[in-house]
Amino acid sequence: MPPRLLLGPGPSNAHPRVLSALGMAQVGHLDPTFITLMNEVQTLLRYAWQTDNQLTIPVSGTGSAAMEATVANGIEQGDKILIGINGYFGHRLVDMASRYGAEIATIEKAWGEVFTLDELREKLAEVRPKILALVHAETSTGARQPLEGVAQLCREYDCLLLVDTVTSLGGVPLFVDEWGIDLCYSGTQKALSCPPGLSPLTFSERAREMVANRSSKVGNWYLDMSLVGKYWGSERTYHHTAPINMNYGLREALRLIAEEGLAERWQRHQENAELFWDGLAEMGIDCHVAKEHRLPTLTTVKIPSGVDGKAVVGALRDDFNIEIAGGLGELGGKVWRVGLMGYNSRPENVARLLDAMRRVMKR
Amino acid sequence: MPPRLLLGPGPSNAHPRVLSALGMAQVGHLDPTFITLMNEVQTLLRYAWQTDNQLTIPVSGTGSAAMEATVANGIEQGDKILIGINGYFGHRLVDMASRYGAEIATIEKAWGEVFTLDELREKLAEVRPKILALVHAETSTGARQPLEGVAQLCREYDCLLLVDTVTSLGGVPLFVDEWGIDLCYSGTQKALSCPPGLSPLTFSERAREMVANRSSKVGNWYLDMSLVGKYWGSERTYHHTAPINMNYGLREALRLIAEEGLAERWQRHQENAELFWDGLAEMGIDCHVAKEHRLPTLTTVKIPSGVDGKAVVGALRDDFNIEIAGGLGELGGKVWRVGLMGYNSRPENVARLLDAMRRVMKR
Repeated sequence: MPPRLLLGPGPSNAHPRVLSALGMAQVGHLDPTFITLMNEVQTLLRYAWQTDNQLTIPVSGTGSAAMEATVANGIEQGDKILIGINGYFGHRLVDMASRYGAEIATIEKAWGEVFTLDELREKLAEVRPKILALVHAETSTGARQPLEGVAQLCREYDCLLLVDTVTSLGGVPLFVDEWGIDLCYSGTQKALSCPPGLSPLTFSERAREMVANRSSKVGNWYLDMSLVGKYWGSERTYHHTAPINMNYGLREALRLIAEEGLAERWQRHQENAELFWDGLAEMGIDCHVAKEHRLPTLTTVKIPSGVDGKAVVGALRDDFNIEIAGGLGELGGKVWRVGLMGYNSRPENVARLLDAMRRVMKR
Repeated sequence: MPPRLLLGPGPSNAHPRVLSALGMAQVGHLDPTFITLMNEVQTLLRYAWQTDNQLTIPVSGTGSAAMEATVANGIEQGDKILIGINGYFGHRLVDMASRYGAEIATIEKAWGEVFTLDELREKLAEVRPKILALVHAETSTGARQPLEGVAQLCREYDCLLLVDTVTSLGGVPLFVDEWGIDLCYSGTQKALSCPPGLSPLTFSERAREMVANRSSKVGNWYLDMSLVGKYWGSERTYHHTAPINMNYGLREALRLIAEEGLAERWQRHQENAELFWDGLAEMGIDCHVAKEHRLPTLTTVKIPSGVDGKAVVGALRDDFNIEIAGGLGELGGKVWRVGLMGYNSRPENVARLLDAMRRVMKR
């Protein structure tokens, strides 16, 4: 495989220590040594998410699996869910929720914009949902949805707060407990710098109670957290066979976060993103998202007029071994998506990308 | 992690070449080089399963994920499914099918026994299901369900044949096309000798047509084969992010099968299992399953009276670094489960286990 520098929307390159951990010889998934590792993974995940939630685990699938787990466990036939759509992943939540019989309401914004508390309040008052779902870090737009104050609204209107943190966990300030998030998921292949294959998930006590009091079985066996929680909890009841080597990798990735420190890591992501944005400005290239709502992990870069966006992506890949991506949906053909996540968020990568972009566009 | 020899019901130890492949640097999941790899994985999987089915892919989750995918895609509200229960995984199929609104009928046998064609015919005539589900290799019992002639019955009664091959793929003669299997799944962590984290799945053209003609959406987004099939098919439509490094590992595991040759591999599994059975007989220990229906990959060994089965499992693990497992469900406390799968099916492992068992039981 070619030595690509993965600066697209994900996966990012895994840290070398993570790649080494992946290849360690296996033990059984019910081995006492693996059970110790499962505990360690959970403890480290709680730190990364800044939560004390007991149910904090990696789901045995890629990011979309944990995403579906929040919906499948949260929704019973006819339950109302209010979904914020300001990018691709809001639409995906709608599709998923529809499969579990949810009554769906949406609040929409242009791709790249975010919702204000007033807008959310108005819609909550109108819809009165059981769950409000928002995307903290929209991988399709590069926008960061502010979450301060949203949980207070949710308490006021008696609903649970579901949040997508796929492109924020480990790279962007995120406080699950302080922000009152009830159902939360992420992926391993973004700012955690672990290959795809697991998807972190955390449920608040309120969410766990809601699942425990469901009147129907969760509509999905593989993602039924009443069963999965017992496999990862003190009961250790056999459910499925956890991806052992992927968990070796994830533990290493989470140890790297603990070693660096979350605040330092967030700061590093912010600094390298700003370095990139400054470099773009020098080239006269704009970003799609207003600076105050821009994610440090994922930047949507406006393709300058007259430039063939697809050709640039291809040339960066084929001639410079750098992966970036084009836009999705509404932003297709309009932006490039550039990720500076986890291990890849380094000044030398910013310099290498800016230099390659300059060369390619000069041709 | 301790250097365990994994001779339980799975996972088995991965081949060293597979462990090396897992740690290779990543490319993006939409990179042309990864798309080539996806094609190679599909081609190799078709060989391992002896099928030309176009939809032959690794699902991005562990074995239970592909198991649920067959049920989720095959069942619409009110569809009838007939499930053969002669072990733990038949019960699991019932639980899964119930979540998709199936009308469930069962045919049952004692754990360790198998169904005859006459028994199946009688029940098919009575129930007239849309799907007949059987477990080819019951990991909980060590029994091999003969499948020759079952598809003819299914055609006669106009139903699809769903088969669990988790503990047979790559270790036990298995001919998906010749045997007329329509919906089939497996795991990577058994006779394929790849760590858990992916689950092979194959659908016949009849099954794909049935999915295409559903009147309702598949009740599970992550496992919706009308979407996943387009991600793995020529369309390459983004669905989720495939576990890149796990696919590196699976490709290597499947290459090892192609290098060895299926017939040779099946023969090796049979020979080493017989070596083990002979050794048990010399020690005066019986097997639970009649020899003609015994799986070469997984043996249920009767715990001799007066022997503390759990203590033996613990001593083998702690003093000899060998993992075997106890029985599940009906066979709990009655048998040990011993796997000789993939890379682990070797005479030296049989000798090492028999020797360790002798020593532990002499104490």
